[in-house]
Amino acid sequence: MIRHQEGTSLVVLSGGVGGARFLSGLVNAIPPENVTAIVNTGDDLVFHGLHVSPDIDIVTYTLAGIVNEEQGWGIERDSFMCLGMLSRLGHENWFRVGDRDLAVHLHRTQKLQQGYTLAQVTDDIRKALGVPCRIIPMTNHPVRTHIDTGKDIIAFQEYFVKRGFGDPVREVIYEGIQQAEAAPGVLEAIKEASAVIIAPGNPFLSIGTILSLKSVRDAIVRSAAQVMTISPIIGGRAVKGPTAEIMQAMGHEASVVGVAQMYRDLLDVIVIDERDRDLKPDIEKLGIRVHVTDTMMNTEQRRIHLAKTVLQALGLDQ
Amino acid sequence: MIRHQEGTSLVVLSGGVGGARFLSGLVNAIPPENVTAIVNTGDDLVFHGLHVSPDIDIVTYTLAGIVNEEQGWGIERDSFMCLGMLSRLGHENWFRVGDRDLAVHLHRTQKLQQGYTLAQVTDDIRKALGVPCRIIPMTNHPVRTHIDTGKDIIAFQEYFVKRGFGDPVREVIYEGIQQAEAAPGVLEAIKEASAVIIAPGNPFLSIGTILSLKSVRDAIVRSAAQVMTISPIIGGRAVKGPTAEIMQAMGHEASVVGVAQMYRDLLDVIVIDERDRDLKPDIEKLGIRVHVTDTMMNTEQRRIHLAKTVLQALGLDQ
Repeated sequence: MIRHQEGTSLVVLSGGVGGARFLSGLVNAIPPENVTAIVNTGDDLVFHGLHVSPDIDIVTYTLAGIVNEEQGWGIERDSFMCLGMLSRLGHENWFRVGDRDLAVHLHRTQKLQQGYTLAQVTDDIRKALGVPCRIIPMTNHPVRTHIDTGKDIIAFQEYFVKRGFGDPVREVIYEGIQQAEAAPGVLEAIKEASAVIIAPGNPFLSIGTILSLKSVRDAIVRSAAQVMTISPIIGGRAVKGPTAEIMQAMGHEASVVGVAQMYRDLLDVIVIDERDRDLKPDIEKLGIRVHVTDTMMNTEQRRIHLAKTVLQALGLDQ
Repeated sequence: MIRHQEGTSLVVLSGGVGGARFLSGLVNAIPPENVTAIVNTGDDLVFHGLHVSPDIDIVTYTLAGIVNEEQGWGIERDSFMCLGMLSRLGHENWFRVGDRDLAVHLHRTQKLQQGYTLAQVTDDIRKALGVPCRIIPMTNHPVRTHIDTGKDIIAFQEYFVKRGFGDPVREVIYEGIQQAEAAPGVLEAIKEASAVIIAPGNPFLSIGTILSLKSVRDAIVRSAAQVMTISPIIGGRAVKGPTAEIMQAMGHEASVVGVAQMYRDLLDVIVIDERDRDLKPDIEKLGIRVHVTDTMMNTEQRRIHLAKTVLQALGLDQ
């Protein structure tokens, strides 16, 4: 059994809420400086001229302990005075940016305009907010997730927030993915990692974007790191969001088996929920190790428990 | 005596608080559509990448009935969540932009980036906020007021807000004034005006900027309109701000006589406060008519009273 050593390092591929919650448990179970979060930027958008990186912000706010826990995104006790006034000035207000949240977008936009990269600004913000583990955007280049609904092609946030993920999903398009390079530090972190953990998240809308960066996928394949995922599907349903529906729409089984199949070429081990215990043999048939535990993350205790279980499953527990 | 007619139109040259308060009385004493405010833009600034026009905003918020009455600027019941967070991210927070206020700057900046002019955006905002009289920035071009303190040259807001107008003023510099043209509508409004009223405001920091636009000054000189000012100096002191100190520093007497002398080449009539009644003859010697009244504007009643007195002094009362 490998104990925590200088060399133990974990890479976590993360989307928004699921990844953030998993990370918040992980940094309580292992020294945070051993953790690198690589975060989806496909849902980034421009909001009234400001660069918003929703997934990066969710991860940062969660790890800084200032996230609005109930909704999983935004900053706790934030107000929406600016949004209310924007609405009075004739703007749509479906994208709920709070006033404190806005400061982060102002800061980011200003720094980007000054020539800093998204990775530099992200690191700057997480340090200012006291986040002890590294957070790296998957790329500094613009990649924008679009949804082909069969009727129209819409930007991710329009699909997700404005329309409340009610549209059918025919195809998920990662605009700009071919030209995008992994941000500095991403490939190095994967290369040196003891394990790469695909956090619970939508395989198409969150994780799929990161894994569509060819250099990232290649680095994971080449790496000696164990690759693990925690299933975002529990009992055939997602804890949050349209994961099950999209998996089905894209021709996959909306189950832990479907998740395992999707990541099959990468995966060494999958963590599934107690409720899916009976599907364990079906996954093992794919040559993937299965660890069964309580994967719900609605309390701090549960998150730490899940993190410890993950470390144990990876043979990295103390 | 000229009564309110279709043709009666008033142009008000305005800085911030004094001009805004005067205008708010005026639009209650005469149909607002007969009033055009031409507003100083020399104190405009870029705040975290956003274009802020403090004097235009003060005028707009005051006329929209949403200004923070106590301080004279900003929006009533605004919060400062964004500013607090910016501070946490390492930024200075001496320029007190509230959260609702911020929406206006976001809107303005976005529109300017889309190619609209400052005058168009200003008109757009005042309409959205239900302001019934025209508000025109003096120019669409960048003019920036700087203060030479003898030790350094600083931007207006740094002098005024950050350092609390504590520095000596050696010179007031209107950067860009030579290249600036009056915004569309400004010269036309002056040409057609029954009267041009220089609102109570700092002759150097507010009004001086507008009158330094050569085309504006020429239009006033050429216009058949009566030209009036309401003295910003009462009993040798300004109601607000460093007007008296700056007038003295620039070699003028800090009195209603000093004010009359400064505008002498333009002025037909000046309104002074009761407290300065004994200086009336000294001003009349300059060939300027003097009207004495209560010029304080700390209540709505007083503002309307002042506006009615002004109309009377101009022979434009009903």
